[in-house]
Amino acid sequence: MALSPQRTIAELKELRALTGNADGAQRVAFTPTWAKARQFLREKLSTLPVEVKQDPAGNLWATLKGKSDRKMLIGGHIDSVPNGGWLDGCLNLLAGVEVLRRIAAEGPPPVTVRLVDWADEEGARFGRSLFGSSAVSGALVPDEVRNLKDKEGTLLVDAAKARGIDLDHALDARSELKNAAAYLELHIEQGPVLESRNEAMGAVLGTFGVERHAITFTGQAAHSGSTPMAHRRDALGGVSKLHLAVREIAVNHGGVCTVGSVVTKPGIVTAVVGEAEMTLDQRHLDANVLATMHHEAREASERIAKEEKIDVAWRKIWQIQPFPFHPQLIDLADEAIKEVCGVSFRLPSGPLHDAAEVCRAGVPTVMLFVQSLKGISHNKIEDTKEEHIAMSVQALDRLATKTMKWIERIV
Amino acid sequence: MALSPQRTIAELKELRALTGNADGAQRVAFTPTWAKARQFLREKLSTLPVEVKQDPAGNLWATLKGKSDRKMLIGGHIDSVPNGGWLDGCLNLLAGVEVLRRIAAEGPPPVTVRLVDWADEEGARFGRSLFGSSAVSGALVPDEVRNLKDKEGTLLVDAAKARGIDLDHALDARSELKNAAAYLELHIEQGPVLESRNEAMGAVLGTFGVERHAITFTGQAAHSGSTPMAHRRDALGGVSKLHLAVREIAVNHGGVCTVGSVVTKPGIVTAVVGEAEMTLDQRHLDANVLATMHHEAREASERIAKEEKIDVAWRKIWQIQPFPFHPQLIDLADEAIKEVCGVSFRLPSGPLHDAAEVCRAGVPTVMLFVQSLKGISHNKIEDTKEEHIAMSVQALDRLATKTMKWIERIV
Repeated sequence: MALSPQRTIAELKELRALTGNADGAQRVAFTPTWAKARQFLREKLSTLPVEVKQDPAGNLWATLKGKSDRKMLIGGHIDSVPNGGWLDGCLNLLAGVEVLRRIAAEGPPPVTVRLVDWADEEGARFGRSLFGSSAVSGALVPDEVRNLKDKEGTLLVDAAKARGIDLDHALDARSELKNAAAYLELHIEQGPVLESRNEAMGAVLGTFGVERHAITFTGQAAHSGSTPMAHRRDALGGVSKLHLAVREIAVNHGGVCTVGSVVTKPGIVTAVVGEAEMTLDQRHLDANVLATMHHEAREASERIAKEEKIDVAWRKIWQIQPFPFHPQLIDLADEAIKEVCGVSFRLPSGPLHDAAEVCRAGVPTVMLFVQSLKGISHNKIEDTKEEHIAMSVQALDRLATKTMKWIERIV
Repeated sequence: MALSPQRTIAELKELRALTGNADGAQRVAFTPTWAKARQFLREKLSTLPVEVKQDPAGNLWATLKGKSDRKMLIGGHIDSVPNGGWLDGCLNLLAGVEVLRRIAAEGPPPVTVRLVDWADEEGARFGRSLFGSSAVSGALVPDEVRNLKDKEGTLLVDAAKARGIDLDHALDARSELKNAAAYLELHIEQGPVLESRNEAMGAVLGTFGVERHAITFTGQAAHSGSTPMAHRRDALGGVSKLHLAVREIAVNHGGVCTVGSVVTKPGIVTAVVGEAEMTLDQRHLDANVLATMHHEAREASERIAKEEKIDVAWRKIWQIQPFPFHPQLIDLADEAIKEVCGVSFRLPSGPLHDAAEVCRAGVPTVMLFVQSLKGISHNKIEDTKEEHIAMSVQALDRLATKTMKWIERIV
């Protein structure tokens, strides 16, 4: 059976009709709509000579036995955020199904090929993303997620149990990575870089490390009329100056720094701000540079606090190290893209992906990005040109062939 | 009867015990506690040869007939914010009672002296401050306040009616200013200026004009990981830059500019801010300089919006013109303070006061400020040294004598 990227596009539309509504995709992990999407995926796989199973963390695996037990993994996630887009996560899976079809049609492949649908990549319902892939990597700490609740008060542990997942055995899924020799993931970029360069696809260098903190400046609330400027200890002064400083730090180091939220207290029009909290999200592909960016932001905050005669306190929200992908697989991804698109480009991934967890577990990993229109994702208007979707299926297919050969060589 | 500032301090403590609790003063206008405070005031006035009445706007007037029908007014307000301080508003009244006692003891004064307790200066319950004094000045628009509600859903019109105030006749109180020749108001500073200069009292130059606006910057919400710095349209960039710019504008012109509230949308740690709203409160004693400050802030916002590739929109919240007090009364206030404290200082009032409304009505007006500890007011820790309270009663008394002579001279 020849590769048919048009079939992938048709199947994506089929899935959209089945699991979306006027507000977008509704395949939130562990919900009935998610279960319906998985059933759809199982039906697509049912005509292939693959063994299908759900692991103890809820990840769905389809295994095409090859001549060797060494395994090439292709991954994606069928779950979406509420009111999500039609491509995020499921493009990878349905392109993977198409690649499996092509490989299976040619008889037993040189290595075993496994397609995985990771459970709850988005974390949209319980706030813990990469659930299934972090179980496989061993990074998941069951006790840290056991009591997470959704808006209705349902516990993650119960929602998972209803889908046959026993949280206390989720880490048993680590055995699924046995003999994994490579992991491939195709994804929409979810950013504006490829579109702005007018390029269809890019080879992904790795996922950014993230330093995420809440920073609180404390000054003195005071009457906006009776307090002369020289007498003020304006907590918002800390936020405004640090916001501008971290933007410069990001530009200087080629990373990104974002202040996404500012909260002012008392937060009334007639009072100087007594306390101001801001969030800071810093990302870079290089762990050392990220550490420098973080250090510079801390230094700036202390210098600014002194200038403004206010106090500053940092609280860590979350951090993750960068996961640089495998250099040889990046080269293969580049080759595959060039063959299909004529030109390739290398870029880091700002968003996290399941690929980061597989990379953490030591499996050689690479991702392919395909252009996102307007860089928008997690929204019903998320879109990619159909010609680019078709190219992405072809590039994943070529990368799969190259990777199987690479695995054979390195055995 | 000789002036007894110590009696004023004792009466202030008596009022605190009667109408406060562990959280501070609870004399919110039109409540039972406010009525109790007014009853206390009426009892203090009952031993004096004064006529006491409530005007159609709910202001309480005590009139000591003098040899002339020209009137010197002394004002204050017995209402407080919830959890307020023990001096804001009532120091003025109880010092005024003491001055009335001293004057009355000396026989009929040369001019008629009236003490007024303004109704709902604070506006703490319905959001409309200076209710009673703005009725007297004619600035009150009954239809604009008729439907104001408190947190329990009670209408201002009904709360006022329960205290014998018919909103539709409130403006009839304008006649109370007939023959008013001067208005004196003593108040705690509610700011840090006198304390920082180590001075007990100051003569007030007038009340600041205020320009109060909400400013909304609109950029594009975007993923904090996938959107390179150069691709961003960060709405918070508008806020941070404008905040720093308006602080400079204030310093350059000797006024004050305050950004008291910032609200970010979507306001999450992982998204560039798509929309940011800030409040801006600008104040100056000179109307032309205030207009310049406002103009410069608008220009800065437009320049910044261009730099940041975002949009900016202004919405007026409120504005009021400056009310400069009467130059000769300021001189008299200065003299009175120098006689009592040895030194005086002139300063503008950032907060509004009933004096502004009386000034608006064309009555020659002046205020005396007495030092506030730490500049704090509207809080149970609001305080002033007792020796300074005593000085303020003496200074008001001397100012009253000087003002009566001044009224006689200008007749």
